[in-house]
Amino acid sequence: MAAACPTRQVVGRIGDKWTLLTLFALGARTLRFSDLRREVDGVSQKMLTQTLRGLERDGLVSRRVYATVPPKVEYAVTPLGASLQEVIGTFRAWAYGHMDEIASARRCYDERDDADA
Amino acid sequence: MAAACPTRQVVGRIGDKWTLLTLFALGARTLRFSDLRREVDGVSQKMLTQTLRGLERDGLVSRRVYATVPPKVEYAVTPLGASLQEVIGTFRAWAYGHMDEIASARRCYDERDDADA
Repeated sequence: MAAACPTRQVVGRIGDKWTLLTLFALGARTLRFSDLRREVDGVSQKMLTQTLRGLERDGLVSRRVYATVPPKVEYAVTPLGASLQEVIGTFRAWAYGHMDEIASARRCYDERDDADA
Repeated sequence: MAAACPTRQVVGRIGDKWTLLTLFALGARTLRFSDLRREVDGVSQKMLTQTLRGLERDGLVSRRVYATVPPKVEYAVTPLGASLQEVIGTFRAWAYGHMDEIASARRCYDERDDADA
């Protein structure tokens, strides 16, 4: 798990809440920035811009600019991004399948903490 | 992808670089804080403390304190944490399998940016 390990750098870059949520929201669609911002509830304009730039730089999302007035910009996943979406799907399915267990663990933890205080 | 969706909250909590790296480093072992800190290269003491507290609260890691002087504290994954480790393993395998593609996408992106400037 050395910081210089390339695998770890990739995990560090992609293992980020907004990156995961944006890739998931994009799905197989082509979306404009404003559509994506609506889909990823709670993301700020700045954070979404930064997240999309990172995804584009990593070759996971493609950005297409149309020479209209105002310019139209559309985002879609690349084949590489689509393969990562499959992994994220597993991750999300795990979260969905275990959210009750996690919620109950949190309740225990918080009650125990209250008792300690 | 509403912010209030429980699945999304779980993804938002666990989809975090240090959480992923710590769970991965722990593996099937029982480790002391100082061992873990060495394994997760680059993590600060504060960040590791915070990450482990989140993992414990979510029921993913168990913390055992021995009444020695100084007190010995050990961490290990729970069965729930072990099931998440499998998903993280898929994620890491993806990163390992595609790191060359990602590195080459980054080079293209950075060169294009240089050309634009």
